[in-house]
Amino acid sequence: MANVLVPLADGFEEIEAMAIIDVLSRAQNHVVVAGLFDNEVEGANTGLKVLVHDLLRNVDPEDFDIMVLPGGLPGAEHLAKSELVQEYIRRMNEKGKMIGAICAAPWALKEAGVLDGKKHTNYPGFEEKTGVEGYIPDQKVVIDGNVVTSRGPGTAICFALELVRILNGEETYKQLKEGLLADYC
Amino acid sequence: MANVLVPLADGFEEIEAMAIIDVLSRAQNHVVVAGLFDNEVEGANTGLKVLVHDLLRNVDPEDFDIMVLPGGLPGAEHLAKSELVQEYIRRMNEKGKMIGAICAAPWALKEAGVLDGKKHTNYPGFEEKTGVEGYIPDQKVVIDGNVVTSRGPGTAICFALELVRILNGEETYKQLKEGLLADYC
Repeated sequence: MANVLVPLADGFEEIEAMAIIDVLSRAQNHVVVAGLFDNEVEGANTGLKVLVHDLLRNVDPEDFDIMVLPGGLPGAEHLAKSELVQEYIRRMNEKGKMIGAICAAPWALKEAGVLDGKKHTNYPGFEEKTGVEGYIPDQKVVIDGNVVTSRGPGTAICFALELVRILNGEETYKQLKEGLLADYC
Repeated sequence: MANVLVPLADGFEEIEAMAIIDVLSRAQNHVVVAGLFDNEVEGANTGLKVLVHDLLRNVDPEDFDIMVLPGGLPGAEHLAKSELVQEYIRRMNEKGKMIGAICAAPWALKEAGVLDGKKHTNYPGFEEKTGVEGYIPDQKVVIDGNVVTSRGPGTAICFALELVRILNGEETYKQLKEGLLADYC
């Protein structure tokens, strides 16, 4: 079981965030959702607020095996422009820990230098932010070493399932994929 | 643009609820998320609480064009056993208004008598609660008159998109499906 850190900023994409948190929790990982600004974080499309577990500045990235960034705007822009998020991404990457990002959030990985030389994907059109080199437009999920990226709300369950496959193994992946009715992944 | 009522009870399935609320909001509908018990409603798998817009007992079903029920347990069981939810389903059904339910939540429609004689689907195995007659196991979304049902987290975006097609038209459906990267729907 892995310790998973999910930073959440106002303007996060609700389906992506919930798919990541829900699927990784179903696999019995310990998922900590940490607000960048506040304990109440507002979604990009619904106006709903989620009460998160902690504030990002109060958690220690050393305690986690993986950090996963949901997309959505302006949520992903907040993550890309936050010095704290950038520091956490770099520290975890330096230790070879897993880093995941979906939709617009690979932008935050690019800013931290983590995408350099790495195959990756993102929401169509965000190559402007993430860099064309290594960009793969025709896969739901791209895995290159410790970096896992994906494209948008419709690929979020598949993204989370691939993280489960890496963290929790093939058997858990298969069980969850069947239980979620995500046969298209 | 439609007025959409989404009742939420503790133990709701997070991906399903967010897919419904997010996609219907993206289509510019007015979505009211109403808590059955409280203004803070806890998800089934994540332990996270969502701050909802209102309490169900404070809204008038006459004000809405459609009610959509997310699944998850015990969330869907609360909806199936709530006299208030049952009353709202029956009143909206009597006026021929749209009613949607996914995963375990068609159980609540069955309890209200709304599935009688209707083709429907639900999470695999929940035929025990919804009735075998009319059950369709091999479609992501089943539409029969004013009743739309679906199967689980992996079909939730497709379910919400079908509701958009009915409420907001084919053009909005196509745009959102493309924007969500849900080509498998």
